[in-house]
Amino acid sequence: MTGENPAHTDALPAAHPAWLPDDVWRPLGSRRVLVALGPDAGPVGGTVVTEVRRAVEAFGGSVTVSTPEDLVDPDRAVAHDVVLLVAERAAQPGSAAMRHTEPVQDPHAGLVTAVTGGDLDGTAGPLIGEETFLRGRRDGRTTVVAGGSRALLYGLHDLVRAGETAFTADQPMTWDLPTQPIRMLDHWDNLTVHPVMGQVERGYAGGSIFWSEGRLRTDLSRVEGYARLLGSIGINAVSVNNVNVDLLEARLLTEGLEDVARLAEIFRPHGVRTYLSVSFGSPRTLGGLSTADPRDPAVQRWWTEAADRVWARIPDFGGFVIKADSEGQPGPFAYGRDHADGANLLARAVAPHGGTIFWRAFVYDHQQDWRDRSTDRARAAYDHFAPLDGRFDENVVVQVKHGPLDFQTREAVSPVIAAMPRTRLAVELQVTQEYTGQQKHVCYLGPWWSELLGFPLWGTRGPTVADVAAGRGPGGLAGGVAAVSNVGTDEFWCGHPLAQANLYAFGRLAWDASLDPVDLLDEWIRLTFGEDPAVASALHEVMDESWRTYEDYTAPLGVGFMVSPTNQHYGPAVDGYEYSRWGTYHFADRDGVGVDRTRATGTGYTGQYPEPWSETYEHLETCPDELLLFFHHVPYGHVLHSGSTVIQHIYDTHFRGVERVEGMVAVWAELEGRVDDGLFVRVTERLGEQLRSAREWRDQITTYFWRKSGVPDERGRRLY
Amino acid sequence: MTGENPAHTDALPAAHPAWLPDDVWRPLGSRRVLVALGPDAGPVGGTVVTEVRRAVEAFGGSVTVSTPEDLVDPDRAVAHDVVLLVAERAAQPGSAAMRHTEPVQDPHAGLVTAVTGGDLDGTAGPLIGEETFLRGRRDGRTTVVAGGSRALLYGLHDLVRAGETAFTADQPMTWDLPTQPIRMLDHWDNLTVHPVMGQVERGYAGGSIFWSEGRLRTDLSRVEGYARLLGSIGINAVSVNNVNVDLLEARLLTEGLEDVARLAEIFRPHGVRTYLSVSFGSPRTLGGLSTADPRDPAVQRWWTEAADRVWARIPDFGGFVIKADSEGQPGPFAYGRDHADGANLLARAVAPHGGTIFWRAFVYDHQQDWRDRSTDRARAAYDHFAPLDGRFDENVVVQVKHGPLDFQTREAVSPVIAAMPRTRLAVELQVTQEYTGQQKHVCYLGPWWSELLGFPLWGTRGPTVADVAAGRGPGGLAGGVAAVSNVGTDEFWCGHPLAQANLYAFGRLAWDASLDPVDLLDEWIRLTFGEDPAVASALHEVMDESWRTYEDYTAPLGVGFMVSPTNQHYGPAVDGYEYSRWGTYHFADRDGVGVDRTRATGTGYTGQYPEPWSETYEHLETCPDELLLFFHHVPYGHVLHSGSTVIQHIYDTHFRGVERVEGMVAVWAELEGRVDDGLFVRVTERLGEQLRSAREWRDQITTYFWRKSGVPDERGRRLY
Repeated sequence: MTGENPAHTDALPAAHPAWLPDDVWRPLGSRRVLVALGPDAGPVGGTVVTEVRRAVEAFGGSVTVSTPEDLVDPDRAVAHDVVLLVAERAAQPGSAAMRHTEPVQDPHAGLVTAVTGGDLDGTAGPLIGEETFLRGRRDGRTTVVAGGSRALLYGLHDLVRAGETAFTADQPMTWDLPTQPIRMLDHWDNLTVHPVMGQVERGYAGGSIFWSEGRLRTDLSRVEGYARLLGSIGINAVSVNNVNVDLLEARLLTEGLEDVARLAEIFRPHGVRTYLSVSFGSPRTLGGLSTADPRDPAVQRWWTEAADRVWARIPDFGGFVIKADSEGQPGPFAYGRDHADGANLLARAVAPHGGTIFWRAFVYDHQQDWRDRSTDRARAAYDHFAPLDGRFDENVVVQVKHGPLDFQTREAVSPVIAAMPRTRLAVELQVTQEYTGQQKHVCYLGPWWSELLGFPLWGTRGPTVADVAAGRGPGGLAGGVAAVSNVGTDEFWCGHPLAQANLYAFGRLAWDASLDPVDLLDEWIRLTFGEDPAVASALHEVMDESWRTYEDYTAPLGVGFMVSPTNQHYGPAVDGYEYSRWGTYHFADRDGVGVDRTRATGTGYTGQYPEPWSETYEHLETCPDELLLFFHHVPYGHVLHSGSTVIQHIYDTHFRGVERVEGMVAVWAELEGRVDDGLFVRVTERLGEQLRSAREWRDQITTYFWRKSGVPDERGRRLY
Repeated sequence: MTGENPAHTDALPAAHPAWLPDDVWRPLGSRRVLVALGPDAGPVGGTVVTEVRRAVEAFGGSVTVSTPEDLVDPDRAVAHDVVLLVAERAAQPGSAAMRHTEPVQDPHAGLVTAVTGGDLDGTAGPLIGEETFLRGRRDGRTTVVAGGSRALLYGLHDLVRAGETAFTADQPMTWDLPTQPIRMLDHWDNLTVHPVMGQVERGYAGGSIFWSEGRLRTDLSRVEGYARLLGSIGINAVSVNNVNVDLLEARLLTEGLEDVARLAEIFRPHGVRTYLSVSFGSPRTLGGLSTADPRDPAVQRWWTEAADRVWARIPDFGGFVIKADSEGQPGPFAYGRDHADGANLLARAVAPHGGTIFWRAFVYDHQQDWRDRSTDRARAAYDHFAPLDGRFDENVVVQVKHGPLDFQTREAVSPVIAAMPRTRLAVELQVTQEYTGQQKHVCYLGPWWSELLGFPLWGTRGPTVADVAAGRGPGGLAGGVAAVSNVGTDEFWCGHPLAQANLYAFGRLAWDASLDPVDLLDEWIRLTFGEDPAVASALHEVMDESWRTYEDYTAPLGVGFMVSPTNQHYGPAVDGYEYSRWGTYHFADRDGVGVDRTRATGTGYTGQYPEPWSETYEHLETCPDELLLFFHHVPYGHVLHSGSTVIQHIYDTHFRGVERVEGMVAVWAELEGRVDDGLFVRVTERLGEQLRSAREWRDQITTYFWRKSGVPDERGRRLY
């Protein structure tokens, strides 16, 4: 698929540096740096050296590349301000996905002690995993000790993020390591432009950085920049094509493998493994077999041979992502098999190579009848998957959307996450703003993901969503987190320059879900825009509450899906899905609104939760306001915990949401001349559209409910 | 654009014969036929001879081709059962469009008398126009005397339609001639497949019969068959590309002219002139000028030269169809000019060639704000065009959609038609079923068009819509009728085999709007399906009231636009356009529904009508039920003239509509084995979809109004 037409050019203009502008390298780059790598440092070690070299060349420091053995002579370290050191480890058994959780004995423990002065956290001792690093400062020397090359890269960027503070006062050596074993970005990129979905499905940032006109781009500079950004925030996996796999994309597994290998070469030096989305129907569509039945030996052979070819070409390949029996994609149901049969078919083909299967749990009836009140789409993933718990092979990760519907601005947490202790689970988030303003609206999602990942599935003291994904749930099996990426060929990566913060926050929360999302926002602002306090404070004001502001002016009280089907989920259409086949209804009538999902009188969905949530959500008295209409159908006069009626809440939040956007516009306008002109203009344009759209949301929703309820706004504001 | 790739093939399977199956030729084909043509008979005369020859070869008759002069010997005529004779006429001055209205002296009047026995209608005498024919039977001989080759073709098909009855008892010679000078079909065909609109915009019958993959088809057999069908019902003009003109289609005027000429060659022998839709922006996009301003001499020169080239290649070319300043198409507004300036620019370029400009009046603000109650899209065409009356050149025809909105199932007649006496007007209908079931639903539109064309614009005794179009209105200027075609590459021409009846009825009503649409339906059934009375009666039952049935289960009481925007106007979405930019609202709230277009309290639209309609529509007491919600906003309890309340009417008509479709399904099922199997299967499938869709309409609309009004159905039927 590559290079058939050498005259073909698809060169892209240079991209915005995102959170890695030159200036962030100044503190490190102005110092004397020693990088000590072992003989197995590999391409990621090379990236560390390259980054440090680039930094010192720009800012007047120096770099020495050495080996850990050299550090037996303490003078070597003393002659430097910064030491970046890999503690070489013995090779470990077990699958790649599991390996990071197994601390290993550092053969150079003595050296580490020499460099660090033995100032290590007692609980961890000298055992460090391959993604773990330690950072501290003593005797005027800042040291990073890493369990492997990737950990060294992460430690390097930890230094970069810390800035000058990492190089001043003494600090004890502290551990850092990712909570999640796999931190993945999924690209819903097609090889060509789909007539309805565009090239990047749910993409709002131009074309695909990987593909153009049916094949790999010749200009892969954007991929290189992207891989560097991902490595800097600890992302370690990327899937390079849409989960809705058309024939052209399916062929990446076979004829297009060279293109995938080329991408893997670019991601590898940044510690990122490459995955492919594959079609369950491939044995038929690509292999010419008459079936894709997981029990058919020829099908099994086909997948085994396909996997063998992939790993022969890309030895560190990650594995496959699959959307099966969902929204028209083929799957095991056609053969009377279940999803465990389907997933294990692929898992056994990739197991000899250490590969992992990400099997999506987004399975539901997308041909529902709106008249049928007995079917509740929110129940679907649980009903399909919970009974299969324990039947998935150990190299299968079931990838579960965070909520039971589909990436709404506000949803309850998916009950599947608490229901499968004997299954490795990954939680799927959506960085691309499909339902959250499509990168035309400022909507910083860090607080939303923080809330989701921190949700205590068994009550306030129990494991959280992030814990389950990280293998600290009841079953102890780890999956990870995955998210749909928001980048494209746009010069600002994301269409909206401020949407870069979502990519950043996802990576950081995937690393550690306990990080404060507001701190992460400020961290991102400082890295991206520098130290100007006026800029930092304005950006903070524009972005900090922007998710809740977006929630204010869109669908109220967790009811979801008031987006326009015509405009591909952009803008309001209160009844847009009300009589559709998609299972996403609000049931508003002249008396009330909301979906009764109780066990007592509704669909019984609340029963999918463990206690205390099952009871909490079941009763009006305990159900949180923000999810009220997701769980209950109530009259417009129902009084919320906030003291407001439902109808007045709808009016108040929608008027408030628009006022807040007006405030964002005003605050941003003050930054003219203080940020890059092109970026200023782009954000200004998008804020204008956000304000227009927010007013449209406000007016449609308030008018809809005014016409339906007949209840006037207490404050007499304009309804239509 | 043609034939660059000789290996390219786009052969189409044979098409259904529509209303010209072999059997309809039997009465004529089994007789001895004399065709007398003059030396100027041209290709249309050749078509008459070809048709007769094919008929007699199939059914055992004979044909003699002769000249009118030969008929001086009465024995020549006597030796035949049928005489088809052109009464040659002197060449006439004036534009092509006007010529037909000027009767001419027949130089062979004596011959006509000899053949016909002088049995002519006294008022017309020997003066006959070039589209006029006489038919009668005397002394065992059936005679058609025609004012020209086209008239002879029309007379031939009049004989075919009459069948055996034309050849039995004596009948006096009677005149027939078309009411409308131009009877046009517009094709909204693109050269390639548009990502949203498909290849044929609002087409429901496969691809374009003209174009494939950006160029003229190599297999033009469908065009030949289509031209023959059009000629048989008196259509005399066809426009071969979409009025939304993209760059590729714009080039038909220049680089693609050979392709247009090839189509003109196919249409010409059937009496059909070829027209092109052009882009007002062509001087810029094709000519490289910096402007398309109608006052700019370079722009005027560009159009003059373009027209000169077209007519040099296609001497009988018809002219141009233009959609300007409408839904994003370029137009004169950009240059501060009005539509008269724009139309006259083109008119002057084509005038030396006898060309005609069809300038569409479908101009409105398609970026309306739904909150703005002062703007009424229904007013737009009148507000834009009525003030321009008298300013259009004589070779401009302003083409007006029949209603003020857009081809709804029920609309008031456009007030523009009564408002421009000094302008040639054409009425535009829509044969393709955009809003009337998209050729998945049986919806015989003859009665609707009959009602529209017969609408008395100034009260019961005044001129009708058809009269104004025909030049029998107050100003005496004739335009004609135009309609959007419903054919494509489908083997049954129209997707739904029964939709052929709409194409047929349009041609026949364009010829004579006073024809009874139910008679036309029976005529079409007899021609298409033969004489089996069981078949005829079943088809009559399925089709006769199908338009009113469709109205029953869709938008009620003239309110319009409850169609789905997502599904491109197929299926229900009650609020689908309610908060949109399209200006098509119903304003339903918990108390009532409808659009107040009165002068007293509404948009004042009723004031665009002359009396008595202005007053009739203004008042609830006189406004007809079927248009009530188009003109008034009323409470759900408002009592109709029918005695029912609005809400109960909504329930009753929707349940009744579905019951009628159930009846259609049952009646059709009886025809298995009595009609062609392929056709039976196709219609059965479509009726199944119609029933499903009708139920969906019923349930969504009744549920919507139940939820909104809270008024229960008196008869307690199922609402959701």
